[in-house]
Amino acid sequence: MAEQEGLTVKKSNDFSEWYTQIVQKAELADIRYNVKGFVVFRPWAVKTMNNMFKVLEDELEAKGHVPALFPALIPESNFKKESEHVEGFLPEVFWVTKVGSDVEKLEEPLAMRPTSETAIYKMYSMWIRSWRDLPLKIYQRCQVWRYEGKATRPFIRGREFYWIESHDAFGTEKEALQQVKEDMKITENTLYKKFGIPFIFFQRPEHDKFAGAVHTYAADTIMPDGRVLQLPSTHLLGQNFSKPFDVKFIDDDKKEKYVWQTCYGPAVSRIFAAVIGFHGDDKGLVLPPEIAAVQIVIVPILKDGDTKVMKKVDDLYKKLKDKFSVTIDSRKEYTPGWKYNYWELKGVPLRIEIGPKDVKNKQMVLVRRDTGEKIIAKETDVKKVESMLKSIQNNLILKADKYFKKNICEIKKFDELKNVLEKKGGLIKIEWCGRKDCADDMKEKTNGGVIRGKIFDKEEKPKSTCINCNNKSKEVVYISKQY
Amino acid sequence: MAEQEGLTVKKSNDFSEWYTQIVQKAELADIRYNVKGFVVFRPWAVKTMNNMFKVLEDELEAKGHVPALFPALIPESNFKKESEHVEGFLPEVFWVTKVGSDVEKLEEPLAMRPTSETAIYKMYSMWIRSWRDLPLKIYQRCQVWRYEGKATRPFIRGREFYWIESHDAFGTEKEALQQVKEDMKITENTLYKKFGIPFIFFQRPEHDKFAGAVHTYAADTIMPDGRVLQLPSTHLLGQNFSKPFDVKFIDDDKKEKYVWQTCYGPAVSRIFAAVIGFHGDDKGLVLPPEIAAVQIVIVPILKDGDTKVMKKVDDLYKKLKDKFSVTIDSRKEYTPGWKYNYWELKGVPLRIEIGPKDVKNKQMVLVRRDTGEKIIAKETDVKKVESMLKSIQNNLILKADKYFKKNICEIKKFDELKNVLEKKGGLIKIEWCGRKDCADDMKEKTNGGVIRGKIFDKEEKPKSTCINCNNKSKEVVYISKQY
Repeated sequence: MAEQEGLTVKKSNDFSEWYTQIVQKAELADIRYNVKGFVVFRPWAVKTMNNMFKVLEDELEAKGHVPALFPALIPESNFKKESEHVEGFLPEVFWVTKVGSDVEKLEEPLAMRPTSETAIYKMYSMWIRSWRDLPLKIYQRCQVWRYEGKATRPFIRGREFYWIESHDAFGTEKEALQQVKEDMKITENTLYKKFGIPFIFFQRPEHDKFAGAVHTYAADTIMPDGRVLQLPSTHLLGQNFSKPFDVKFIDDDKKEKYVWQTCYGPAVSRIFAAVIGFHGDDKGLVLPPEIAAVQIVIVPILKDGDTKVMKKVDDLYKKLKDKFSVTIDSRKEYTPGWKYNYWELKGVPLRIEIGPKDVKNKQMVLVRRDTGEKIIAKETDVKKVESMLKSIQNNLILKADKYFKKNICEIKKFDELKNVLEKKGGLIKIEWCGRKDCADDMKEKTNGGVIRGKIFDKEEKPKSTCINCNNKSKEVVYISKQY
Repeated sequence: MAEQEGLTVKKSNDFSEWYTQIVQKAELADIRYNVKGFVVFRPWAVKTMNNMFKVLEDELEAKGHVPALFPALIPESNFKKESEHVEGFLPEVFWVTKVGSDVEKLEEPLAMRPTSETAIYKMYSMWIRSWRDLPLKIYQRCQVWRYEGKATRPFIRGREFYWIESHDAFGTEKEALQQVKEDMKITENTLYKKFGIPFIFFQRPEHDKFAGAVHTYAADTIMPDGRVLQLPSTHLLGQNFSKPFDVKFIDDDKKEKYVWQTCYGPAVSRIFAAVIGFHGDDKGLVLPPEIAAVQIVIVPILKDGDTKVMKKVDDLYKKLKDKFSVTIDSRKEYTPGWKYNYWELKGVPLRIEIGPKDVKNKQMVLVRRDTGEKIIAKETDVKKVESMLKSIQNNLILKADKYFKKNICEIKKFDELKNVLEKKGGLIKIEWCGRKDCADDMKEKTNGGVIRGKIFDKEEKPKSTCINCNNKSKEVVYISKQY
């Protein structure tokens, strides 16, 4: 820690380098683990991710989900039951083929789950018998493995990531559609309200759906370099899985029916990348108080032989610790200034400084991480601490919102689209003919512009021609470069 | 759920069948997943296990540990670095050898972690540079995979299980020894005080250590059939791993030294088996209030057209919900009696019954799951609810203690040992010569009696001869049949 040094690049000048530095210097992940695409998630990131998991789990449970744990290994025969699904995921599967020393072989290869539909729905076919067993709403918190072809980056994309996947089964299509909307609400209550990440749900084009889904609705956000990052997606599976997996029930009209299904998958490790990107600044990470590994750091300003400061710091700690996550940095080998930089780099939302003058005046100095604002409060004013944390939370949301909205625009001419995608990025509203080959053509010509789909539940009627091929436009969609 | 039926066997008559039934009927795990040795952990078990995880994580953090997440896959070259370790674990490893469709092969086989020393210590060699970086105390909550040869049973033994593993590094041997004692204290504060599981830490004989350890100290408990179940173990690793993994630091005397290490691994899924076994009775599961998925169930006794009962139930729920985990069972399709059986099978510690008479008398009926005792309390008496839950927690610990102590004895003659191991089980104190072949001989002659080792930190001096071979005895140890 002694060599701790700050960021040497500005976020606005070179976001990619800024991100690399923050991951390393704030000790969030270590990329030196010797399996390609796998990283070690370090304590400061894991503490914050654990808080994020808790927020998501509480919200899922409030919406009627219960937790379960399904095996990480899926027999090849399960995995291959739904044809589109296997086509989509097969190239990314890590296969377990042998055990122990070289001699023993498994009878059937086992897939390390890239996602768990084919593990879970086999069980649903045994658990669901009657309309009384529905709806069934189960989630699991786990890690998944995908042999990514694209370049990996910590949190943004890796061959191993941490997520929650919820799998819901219903008696009717209508309830399944309702669940899709509820999943979006869950996303709003967590990602937006607690993590401060704005997003829009898009219905992905046919050629970009989750393998096996009827429709995929994915939350997209915009990173500081203008590229879009896909966050949780919710999938309407219809009866595409219940038929091959034989998930049936006797309805109250005594008829046997296949269930209607949805699934939803917030990848916490990836959402954390958005937290870093949105809120961080040139001094380092800025963590929203609702999920911060530590909300408050108390830095005593000590002079030799002064015991009053530490006494006051301890008293304050006791007053705050039941309500907030607080730490005292009383290390003797570092100066207060060094500590300020250290905790700013780590993104702790609120710093409290206490020196001899503050003891004398019965006060404390509160410093906000987001704005740098410094105020003096009475030493007993716990309410001020609380309101300041709330204010930081709200300010981060507002700032994120402002950035997000500023980076959505509408463009009608292809040359301009190309230019904006190149220079500024963001989400760009266009009209499109709806053909996959036209989308592919645009992607090539714009050096990576990808159609995100149309905004869920928003009527935006096409009025003109496709921005690329000039044929009649079929949909109003959004396009962006992406991670 | 309609077919819910109680246990059809008494715990004291046939524990094995009782355990099988409780796992199925209380919906704790499903053994029908189609990979051998892998089960699905169902919501009721996972909710309780999540509470157990939280208790353990809080305690580990209170003792200075921080969480991290290391990859699930370990390169063969890491895995083989410590010779005893690889010898011990190799037969149990699931190997990933290929990815995607058949064409792509990995350059190096990857082991699914059976335990993470060889993943973690490679990183420690990069993270630890100076005495300032020590002690380093990190834990991870994860699942591990071991190709078990022995018969598997849900929670007791499986090829996939859920645990926490903590890995600590120190500058001196003394601190490492101190950590072993702290790990035992952590075990007491969690397993004993919160989960109600008594145990004794034994120092395992040389031939039964963790592969690669200097010493292994394992907590043993006694299941209701008299067989011993091994619970968390803490291992003094000395410098056995720091040398092959090159984990060195510059001490404050400027000299380069290898670190001293310990590791500790509470397997929550297995500890849950002990929770089932110790506290359960002929009506089903009994969950200790400190970890129960649900602490209180309120059962309204409804008559048609009566709205007062539900109003009172809702008021009570609101009064209790911030302090306790409470659920209301207002299902119309079941009778109160059916519900009593249902929640008794599920092990909810406290039931509150509310009927028209209770509305009239401004009272509630509290029924303890552990003793069946029924008392009437004032409807406002939240303190009574709290004290009853405390009393249930304490009573479960006392009962478990009593059973545990009753099943420890001392035996001096081999024939008697054989007889007691056969008929009653438990932990039996004997004198032993210390030779592995004598232990093997005893195991065969007693049909599975295994030496657990000597009690940690307790002076028990041998005075006589080995119970089996009659040579001079070297140690006072304990023997038992085991899971």
